[in-house]
Amino acid sequence: MYPFRLASRDYHPADSVISVGDVLIGGGHRVYIAGPCSVENPNQIERIGRAVQGSAHILRGGAYKPRTSPYSFQGLAEEGLKMLQAAGQLLGMPTVTEVVSTEDVELVASYVDMLQIGARNMQNFALLRKVGAQSKPVLLKRGMAATIEEVLLSAEYIMAEGNSQVVLCERGIRTFETYTRNTLDISAIPVLHRLTHLPVIVDPSHASGKWNLVEPLAMAAIACGADGLMIEVHDEPDRAWSDGEQSLKPERYRELIRSVRRLVDCIEGE
Amino acid sequence: MYPFRLASRDYHPADSVISVGDVLIGGGHRVYIAGPCSVENPNQIERIGRAVQGSAHILRGGAYKPRTSPYSFQGLAEEGLKMLQAAGQLLGMPTVTEVVSTEDVELVASYVDMLQIGARNMQNFALLRKVGAQSKPVLLKRGMAATIEEVLLSAEYIMAEGNSQVVLCERGIRTFETYTRNTLDISAIPVLHRLTHLPVIVDPSHASGKWNLVEPLAMAAIACGADGLMIEVHDEPDRAWSDGEQSLKPERYRELIRSVRRLVDCIEGE
Amino acid sequence: MYPFRLASRDYHPADSVISVGDVLIGGGHRVYIAGPCSVENPNQIERIGRAVQGSAHILRGGAYKPRTSPYSFQGLAEEGLKMLQAAGQLLGMPTVTEVVSTEDVELVASYVDMLQIGARNMQNFALLRKVGAQSKPVLLKRGMAATIEEVLLSAEYIMAEGNSQVVLCERGIRTFETYTRNTLDISAIPVLHRLTHLPVIVDPSHASGKWNLVEPLAMAAIACGADGLMIEVHDEPDRAWSDGEQSLKPERYRELIRSVRRLVDCIEGE
Amino acid sequence: MYPFRLASRDYHPADSVISVGDVLIGGGHRVYIAGPCSVENPNQIERIGRAVQGSAHILRGGAYKPRTSPYSFQGLAEEGLKMLQAAGQLLGMPTVTEVVSTEDVELVASYVDMLQIGARNMQNFALLRKVGAQSKPVLLKRGMAATIEEVLLSAEYIMAEGNSQVVLCERGIRTFETYTRNTLDISAIPVLHRLTHLPVIVDPSHASGKWNLVEPLAMAAIACGADGLMIEVHDEPDRAWSDGEQSLKPERYRELIRSVRRLVDCIEGE
Repeated sequence: MYPFRLASRDYHPADSVISVGDVLIGGGHRVYIAGPCSVENPNQIERIGRAVQGSAHILRGGAYKPRTSPYSFQGLAEEGLKMLQAAGQLLGMPTVTEVVSTEDVELVASYVDMLQIGARNMQNFALLRKVGAQSKPVLLKRGMAATIEEVLLSAEYIMAEGNSQVVLCERGIRTFETYTRNTLDISAIPVLHRLTHLPVIVDPSHASGKWNLVEPLAMAAIACGADGLMIEVHDEPDRAWSDGEQSLKPERYRELIRSVRRLVDCIEGE
Repeated sequence: MYPFRLASRDYHPADSVISVGDVLIGGGHRVYIAGPCSVENPNQIERIGRAVQGSAHILRGGAYKPRTSPYSFQGLAEEGLKMLQAAGQLLGMPTVTEVVSTEDVELVASYVDMLQIGARNMQNFALLRKVGAQSKPVLLKRGMAATIEEVLLSAEYIMAEGNSQVVLCERGIRTFETYTRNTLDISAIPVLHRLTHLPVIVDPSHASGKWNLVEPLAMAAIACGADGLMIEVHDEPDRAWSDGEQSLKPERYRELIRSVRRLVDCIEGE
Repeated sequence: MYPFRLASRDYHPADSVISVGDVLIGGGHRVYIAGPCSVENPNQIERIGRAVQGSAHILRGGAYKPRTSPYSFQGLAEEGLKMLQAAGQLLGMPTVTEVVSTEDVELVASYVDMLQIGARNMQNFALLRKVGAQSKPVLLKRGMAATIEEVLLSAEYIMAEGNSQVVLCERGIRTFETYTRNTLDISAIPVLHRLTHLPVIVDPSHASGKWNLVEPLAMAAIACGADGLMIEVHDEPDRAWSDGEQSLKPERYRELIRSVRRLVDCIEGE
Repeated sequence: MYPFRLASRDYHPADSVISVGDVLIGGGHRVYIAGPCSVENPNQIERIGRAVQGSAHILRGGAYKPRTSPYSFQGLAEEGLKMLQAAGQLLGMPTVTEVVSTEDVELVASYVDMLQIGARNMQNFALLRKVGAQSKPVLLKRGMAATIEEVLLSAEYIMAEGNSQVVLCERGIRTFETYTRNTLDISAIPVLHRLTHLPVIVDPSHASGKWNLVEPLAMAAIACGADGLMIEVHDEPDRAWSDGEQSLKPERYRELIRSVRRLVDCIEGE
């Protein structure tokens, strides 16, 4: 018996389908989420949003950035949320952004369509409970050293508060290998699909830390059954305020999604 | 150059000495912290406190427990804080307990003498800032997958808010070895002593997860230069509400501290 | 600059194509290797060989098994080599088997078409030199805790002796995650393709340790650019002398290769 | 039940005492092994041997070096063995050196008093069997990613061939932490002492990779119950042919052993 219940396949045998605005995730619905690491200004988020519009269902952009150093850029906070909301409304795209503190949950939820819990907060149980007690869907990223069972128990924290709109995201674990920023645990996708009914997407940008590994990892994730991708896109990666080295340019991103869609057709054609 | 500043030896060459009530930590002052994993009732915490009184400077006891599962006992919250405070006052021992949410910081700080940030919250930056903005000393535990540099950057978050009363705690990292709950990174003690002026203590209970490994690890930590120990003690480990299998009985704890003190005399006699 | 030379893309920009009998590997030629973990008797290896014949290019089967315990079955040695050779000749399939000792290299090379260096021997430099000094192609598996750079330096050991017929094999690394036997480092495929001209195949059987994860990992590997797959197949997994729980039955293996071939067509159709 | 037998405490409850020449290891006998990483010339090994003579029981020096790169210095081979033997005889010190190939076992055993199996060969089972089939004592180093159970199964390979003169050596495991070359798993000492009757020594030089961490780690190891230390010493670390950055100068080594001996007196005085 597994120590999680609401999140388990036993409890809910069919795939869950999560709605973010009018976008569906899971149960055969694949989602592509794209956007810059950080929202930098109204023009930037709108410009990048427009550039990925046909190739992404949901627009991402960080307003509260959990940075390792207190001296790094920490995000534009509420100003950033407003810019993200405006871009999403203009382009007709639902939005997702990270929330890093219990105190910000209501505010963030008032601006965006999906709340992200980042890897560093995967076991911030107070925050999990808080996002579980509101109604916006939650994107829960796996922690750097979290086992698969721990990811599911963190999902359980959210669901136990009444919010079952949870999407899991594999984004790489910390290992001895230093060539990549993290090690994408590709096996987590089929393992999670066996253990839980919740959708599982993959973030190849954080997993690799290198833009030129994003495409092969995205293809692998989809071939392996992932329900979607979250990818960092920036039109001027060299000038990005954060994570430029792992961001794709919009044209590359669109090309990647074209390849991904052909791959999906091929797999579903079987 | 290191990316941390206030925490660095370069910035502050002498060892920092942190005061918790009238207990000093660092710069040659070794601290022994003991008590149960969880505060269970007024009698339990007072009884255990009394049993370790002469062998521990600070009394620990959890009131807010960050548990992997939402269905595990989560602590007695404010009731637990009151019991811990009462026992501390009765016995004349300062107290330390974990705080897990920004919203609880003020409340917790009003009851105890030192605030603990647990391993799972080491990169909960909102919480770090909050404990940095109040004046009680902070015990910062290393995260399970945190590098030494990341520990120091988390300390920097606290110090950058104005609170330089920070004690670091090595408690084991997550590795492939499964015989022990975690792998105590003993090298972190001398490495941290080179990089920072902050005191470094060790928690052999969480590092090993087994009561019969606590003594050898405690001796190793002190021989290696640790500024103190934090050890889980319970007089009925089999009935403890959490972590019983890694808790020492009071008589064993007192024996251990006698050995530790002989070791300190021996080392300082040099 | 990288510390390896002969193995590097700089030294040899085009993909190397390795020949094993009349089977080509690399430079667009994908190879499927299948067979039982251990050769058990003449009938078993012939029967399994026949069952995978149309779906595998190369027949594998262990005669020298590097087992963690001295009390586990260690392989049939030369008798096993004879059985493997006979099956390969009967079915017209080249063969591959592991060599575990410098003293066996000549003998093993006299029976099979490709020599495998297992994960535990990846840094057995005496063995690497020995297989480098003979002319049969070599399948070099990544060690459990080997970095990508170390894999390439081990290939360099073989090549520096004059044998440039080396195929690399990612088979999972050791991490904290215990749900899978190892963690398949899928990123290693595109990273290796950037750093080296040598072909890179994947062993999803050892990477996962579970037969029901073999298919999704195989698909991921191919989508990510792997030059082939090595998969354990047994017609009576419950009675296999070793690794039964990670072995596919022949019919499942054939189905998997059909899916893989459709995936290849789809990717190459682009 | 554990999968190892001859190595287990159940099979042999009392501590084993291993003899290397007239030096005893285990059961209260602590051994200090010192010398250069590589034997470089007759004068070097004699000079360093003389410098550590009163502070080390056994002289070490590598003649066959298992180097990650084929282009690094690989040791002086038989010439190095002769130099080590000569220095040992001159100074009246038993000697230990690494053997890396089955083919060299007899030759190496004819020159030195103890054979070392290095971390990279811990699961080179052919080599384990070969050193098990001869009579010189064996120093078995833990592999970089080997579990404690695997170390004991490798010891079992040696013992099952008839050689029960085995000393285990913890030398650090590979983890995500990059500040140190490896992570010394200090808990392995008490854990091994519970599981096996074989002596356990520690190599703080390889564990840390930094000469200035050798002393604190050595003290920790002894405080934790280690049966000895193996430490790299070089009188001109900057000019050492290998591992200079982790080698102590002789005067520092002698000082360290003085501290270690005071620590032993203190512990045994209890």
